[in-house]
Amino acid sequence: MFDEQFLKDFRSMSRFGKTARGGVDRQAATLPDGQTRNWFRGLAEGHGLTVEFDEVGNQFALLEFEPGLPYLAFGSHLDSQPCGGRFDGAYGVLSGLHAVLRVRERIAESGVKPMFNLAAINWFNEEGSRFKPSMMGSSVFTGKMSVGDVLSIKDSTGVTVRDALAQIGTLGEFRLRLGAYVEIHIEQGRSLEDAGKTIGLVESTWGANKFEFEFVGEQGHTGATLLVDRQDALYAASSIVVAAREIAERYVAGGASIVSSCGELNVFPNSPVVVPSRVTMLVDMRADEQSVLDAATAELLARIEEVANVARVRVVRGAEHTWGAKRYSAAGVDLARECCEGLGLSHATVRTLAGHDSTNVKDTVPTVMLFVPSRDGISHNELEFTEDADMLSGLHLLTELGERICAGRAEAFIAAGASL
Amino acid sequence: MFDEQFLKDFRSMSRFGKTARGGVDRQAATLPDGQTRNWFRGLAEGHGLTVEFDEVGNQFALLEFEPGLPYLAFGSHLDSQPCGGRFDGAYGVLSGLHAVLRVRERIAESGVKPMFNLAAINWFNEEGSRFKPSMMGSSVFTGKMSVGDVLSIKDSTGVTVRDALAQIGTLGEFRLRLGAYVEIHIEQGRSLEDAGKTIGLVESTWGANKFEFEFVGEQGHTGATLLVDRQDALYAASSIVVAAREIAERYVAGGASIVSSCGELNVFPNSPVVVPSRVTMLVDMRADEQSVLDAATAELLARIEEVANVARVRVVRGAEHTWGAKRYSAAGVDLARECCEGLGLSHATVRTLAGHDSTNVKDTVPTVMLFVPSRDGISHNELEFTEDADMLSGLHLLTELGERICAGRAEAFIAAGASL
Repeated sequence: MFDEQFLKDFRSMSRFGKTARGGVDRQAATLPDGQTRNWFRGLAEGHGLTVEFDEVGNQFALLEFEPGLPYLAFGSHLDSQPCGGRFDGAYGVLSGLHAVLRVRERIAESGVKPMFNLAAINWFNEEGSRFKPSMMGSSVFTGKMSVGDVLSIKDSTGVTVRDALAQIGTLGEFRLRLGAYVEIHIEQGRSLEDAGKTIGLVESTWGANKFEFEFVGEQGHTGATLLVDRQDALYAASSIVVAAREIAERYVAGGASIVSSCGELNVFPNSPVVVPSRVTMLVDMRADEQSVLDAATAELLARIEEVANVARVRVVRGAEHTWGAKRYSAAGVDLARECCEGLGLSHATVRTLAGHDSTNVKDTVPTVMLFVPSRDGISHNELEFTEDADMLSGLHLLTELGERICAGRAEAFIAAGASL
Repeated sequence: MFDEQFLKDFRSMSRFGKTARGGVDRQAATLPDGQTRNWFRGLAEGHGLTVEFDEVGNQFALLEFEPGLPYLAFGSHLDSQPCGGRFDGAYGVLSGLHAVLRVRERIAESGVKPMFNLAAINWFNEEGSRFKPSMMGSSVFTGKMSVGDVLSIKDSTGVTVRDALAQIGTLGEFRLRLGAYVEIHIEQGRSLEDAGKTIGLVESTWGANKFEFEFVGEQGHTGATLLVDRQDALYAASSIVVAAREIAERYVAGGASIVSSCGELNVFPNSPVVVPSRVTMLVDMRADEQSVLDAATAELLARIEEVANVARVRVVRGAEHTWGAKRYSAAGVDLARECCEGLGLSHATVRTLAGHDSTNVKDTVPTVMLFVPSRDGISHNELEFTEDADMLSGLHLLTELGERICAGRAEAFIAAGASL
């Protein structure tokens, strides 16, 4: 009955920003993101919870057992990539809300005195496609970015975060006293599926280095300007796209775990018969070992200088967004493992290649990060898919974890504190 | 006096769509292109000429000596690249109008009976940046494209040629009976400057192959999707940008004259953390010898198949726009050389790497194509520059050619007919 209601809510939520191939397009603070946020508010209020927003649009569905208690929160994000999947983030927020409702019921039945109030959090702009960087809301919440800086960030059309959030009506002034955090997410990789396991216990993040580069050359005529006279910004940028891939493949061939990508690249003036004068691009490298990440990054940066010389263009380094390969709370992994075993759920420890809001939160309060399988590892894609049964298993685990933490039966996890 | 008036008109014209670094931005059928076209109409009418438009927006400033005579026309184009130069095309149209005015005066003074009426033509959309392909107006005029097809072509925002031309008010139904054609243009290369010559006598076009490609992969997460699982459209497209350059450089090293370029490349969904699922791109190869062009193009097309396999993406070949390496009328080159010598202008035969409207027109009527120097060969760039003295030398040559052809003193050129 509870399970059916979760699946029904999940299907209803997936209609916001629905795309042709079964995905969603709900970039941060767009109208479809606003629709989802306001629907989520209604859903939580319908179940008797209170909903609040903070100064950067983080959304909190609150169940207060007793004023003054810290909150145990389940969270993730409702925003998506352009033509993204319907599970990424949204699964974690909705199952978080349902976990709150179930824990409320169990606490009432058991009569135990709760140690935490409960919350389900929808972090603002985890994806970072419309407004950069990603994990924006949780970065502000954990003090890694300032409110003022974030509200002034503009999208490609010049709209600020402040104006976009005001337009969809999801700004506030609430401050949450967070005591512990649990996040569940689809894996976005295929290690669980390959191993035939239901739950991933995330023991560490991969390190990531994200760079913005701008190559600046000069316009020329694609027919009349000799190759030797060109200052072709796209030739330089394309060489870097290829080099980033080749460097990472070389490390993979040597046994390392590393990926590299260029997801965004913009060409100016982008006319068929003009040699491009300017290209902006984002390059991203991630590895599970910091030493591999450092070495591959150094190679890439050296290539950039060479390529700029060959193409006779200038290179400008823009913003960087990096995080190290870091461990999650070992006590949290142990706690989640115990819960899995109690519930009869198969499990494996995994590392996350993707960033998640818990990447930020784990540095401030005791945190558990969990995965459920993604079919074929497909993600940031409309075809992203997780089985109903796996979603429900994850929800059952969240509920179990929530009850144990709330009822004071997770001392080692709470005592171990944040991962910092 | 006449020369000063030309330079004054040129400076006035250069204000339409003026850019910060001294160039112009007047893409086809935009508001600044419309302003220039309507100004040109006023200027010609102010000098007693009649101005007409045809069904695809080609603009004709007409001086009719006698009804029924075919027209000798001077032409080029007033549209520009985005952030283009103020000389490219515009010099040829304005000097064409001034040549008409001077020939009118000389004919009146000499009392000779003219064999041709006179026209200055502003061909629609030579540049092909907003609406593809390039040389659009002259392609319709010479029967290489149909009116209906061209009017339905859309820009990147979905506006059709028909609507764009209607909006700036430069559509009509006029049909010109063309008998001979002379075009003057800046070189957009540096062979004249390097050789210290004032006039380029264009003896042939380079061949050009322009291809549209689309690479289609699948979106993925830039962090979580393993390299081996990716179908990365940008990796494929970037490999082709690099390959096109390297193939051309190899032929250049072997002594051939060839250039290759990618001027336009669009990435979807173009989000920092999404492996690109789709890239559209234009690749352009040009060479002075057809055999070199054919061989290099075959190598490029073979590479595209390889690259698509490696990146696990599908490649879709879109529109192609090709022209062969072709000769201009040898009698026209001889006629122009004689006129240069009569005027004391230094000259050299050259080949054109760029396409021009005369590339089309030469296939239908006797045609002469002329160049004046461009400083450092810079073109399709705001910094494009041609000296006043060179512009005036070109205008004097146009006038001399116009008088000779109009007065019937260019029998061999007219008798030799079109280059086809």
